[in-house]
Amino acid sequence: MEKEIRQLIGYRKKIKVLDATIRDGGLVNNFAFDDEFVRALYLANKKAGVDYMEFGYRASKELFDVKDYGPWKFSEDEDIRRIIGDIQDGPKVSIMIDVGRCDFETDIVDKADSPVDMVRVACYLHQIPSAIEMIEYCKDKGYEVCCNIMAVSTLQEGELREGLEMVASSGVDVIYIVDSYGSIYPEEMARLVDLYRSVVGEHGKELGIHAHNNQQLAFANTIECVGDGVNYLDATYNGMGRGAGNCAMELLLGFLKNPKYKEYQVFKFVQDYMVQLKKTGVVWGPDLQYIITGLLEQHPRSAIAFTKEGRTDYANFYRDILLGE
Amino acid sequence: MEKEIRQLIGYRKKIKVLDATIRDGGLVNNFAFDDEFVRALYLANKKAGVDYMEFGYRASKELFDVKDYGPWKFSEDEDIRRIIGDIQDGPKVSIMIDVGRCDFETDIVDKADSPVDMVRVACYLHQIPSAIEMIEYCKDKGYEVCCNIMAVSTLQEGELREGLEMVASSGVDVIYIVDSYGSIYPEEMARLVDLYRSVVGEHGKELGIHAHNNQQLAFANTIECVGDGVNYLDATYNGMGRGAGNCAMELLLGFLKNPKYKEYQVFKFVQDYMVQLKKTGVVWGPDLQYIITGLLEQHPRSAIAFTKEGRTDYANFYRDILLGE
Repeated sequence: MEKEIRQLIGYRKKIKVLDATIRDGGLVNNFAFDDEFVRALYLANKKAGVDYMEFGYRASKELFDVKDYGPWKFSEDEDIRRIIGDIQDGPKVSIMIDVGRCDFETDIVDKADSPVDMVRVACYLHQIPSAIEMIEYCKDKGYEVCCNIMAVSTLQEGELREGLEMVASSGVDVIYIVDSYGSIYPEEMARLVDLYRSVVGEHGKELGIHAHNNQQLAFANTIECVGDGVNYLDATYNGMGRGAGNCAMELLLGFLKNPKYKEYQVFKFVQDYMVQLKKTGVVWGPDLQYIITGLLEQHPRSAIAFTKEGRTDYANFYRDILLGE
Repeated sequence: MEKEIRQLIGYRKKIKVLDATIRDGGLVNNFAFDDEFVRALYLANKKAGVDYMEFGYRASKELFDVKDYGPWKFSEDEDIRRIIGDIQDGPKVSIMIDVGRCDFETDIVDKADSPVDMVRVACYLHQIPSAIEMIEYCKDKGYEVCCNIMAVSTLQEGELREGLEMVASSGVDVIYIVDSYGSIYPEEMARLVDLYRSVVGEHGKELGIHAHNNQQLAFANTIECVGDGVNYLDATYNGMGRGAGNCAMELLLGFLKNPKYKEYQVFKFVQDYMVQLKKTGVVWGPDLQYIITGLLEQHPRSAIAFTKEGRTDYANFYRDILLGE
């Protein structure tokens, strides 16, 4: 798709920005955000014009012990209601459920009885049949529904097409490209969008992008997608997210030209809350260990362990991964 | 220019990578690198297959007091010779001279008597007549010569064309696009490359890219340029450079597929030297104050001052710039 200069000056009203700070950032601090932080973030998102705020996962309390996590691992309706309180006309609310890690049939109630607007179903390609069951369940309950297919960089085009065709035939509203390993370059991203659109387009589904910052490309890949017609954009304040983090909200709102977006509010929240959070020792961002897993198209878990151990012997880390040790 | 998938798998032999760690990084630590560091970097560049290493500026000792700076503000031939010593077949050597800040007629000798291979002339658009004088002088002395036109994001297309036409008509070998403020998005970069090529192409000059990382786009803009046929690529270890820093060498060599490039050597140097350097308190990288000057297309000097003062009141900084205070 040829990009037009007017896309840099004008804007598309259909674009929706989703703040995933609590959900993806929660993977860094075990979801231990206090209520004041989450409420201030909800207010900041409202003032900044952000369209959706993802509060967290709704994980199974059978599989995960509530004592081991902050509340946003489970994001119960009552937790969300407590945060929103009397705030009117704030961003829409989303939660994420992972295939095999949630009890959607008991934990997802009718939308009419919930503060949640959108449910995002995360899955790997081989889990798509289970994902579709969850998508249809949530759609029947009245929610907007996304499907986030993870780790697409490692998939064959044929199997990806097959999976996309299945999801696109479901009741899903938005299908997300998820660069889980932060390994995709913008040129590849443009081709992925073309592929997604070629399969999904005739079904009238929207596309979304959730990027990781291993190679300092989360923002670049996200705006590449904007140029290619993707309308659902994930970002997080200060780029907070697992490992190398995500597309930074402050960069994204600065780029988008819709006057409803106010990046000043993002700078304000970072100044008032994120600086303090960082001082507590919570660490994320594109340090070299994440560049290495991104470059080698690997899950960041080894890089996260490297970070936790306070290691800086990057070359040893690279060699060990290359040699499979 | 349509990009081709094979550019991501194959490689162009004409691509040259230039390490600007000492020169642009020197703007952060006042050029106070010790000899061991610089020699280890030269060796790392040799092992990593880097084509050029820029040792520093050759600034006027009339205008600048040698007591106020480390040696790489002046990068005298004897300093460079001392570093290289008996190392054979290392990267080519470049130095930078700024219009109005050097004494080229006394300080640049015949190439036959110098360890320098390439002289890069940095200028703003209005200085191009002076730059051309310097270019012709250095060319006559036998050097490869580049012209780095700074702050191009703020120029009108007409005046830029005019300036490019003048430079392209000189003896210059390479003309660099310099995103001094880190404000250019990849789509704009692609258009700039087209513009440069349309003026410069018929003169048979090469193009180069020197990117800054204010919006986390230095690497993205550099590889955008690779896709558009730009052959001279600046990078620095760990992205070290003024303010938000530059395109990181570890990312760039990971992306380039020419087998001669060995990113392992970059990780090794970062592990052995850059980690230690950072511990001394030298600070660079795309913190929010640099995002803000990038977004607002401003020189980073106010952000550098903000950094030095240890401030984190980003929203106040943004507001003050917006209001012109």
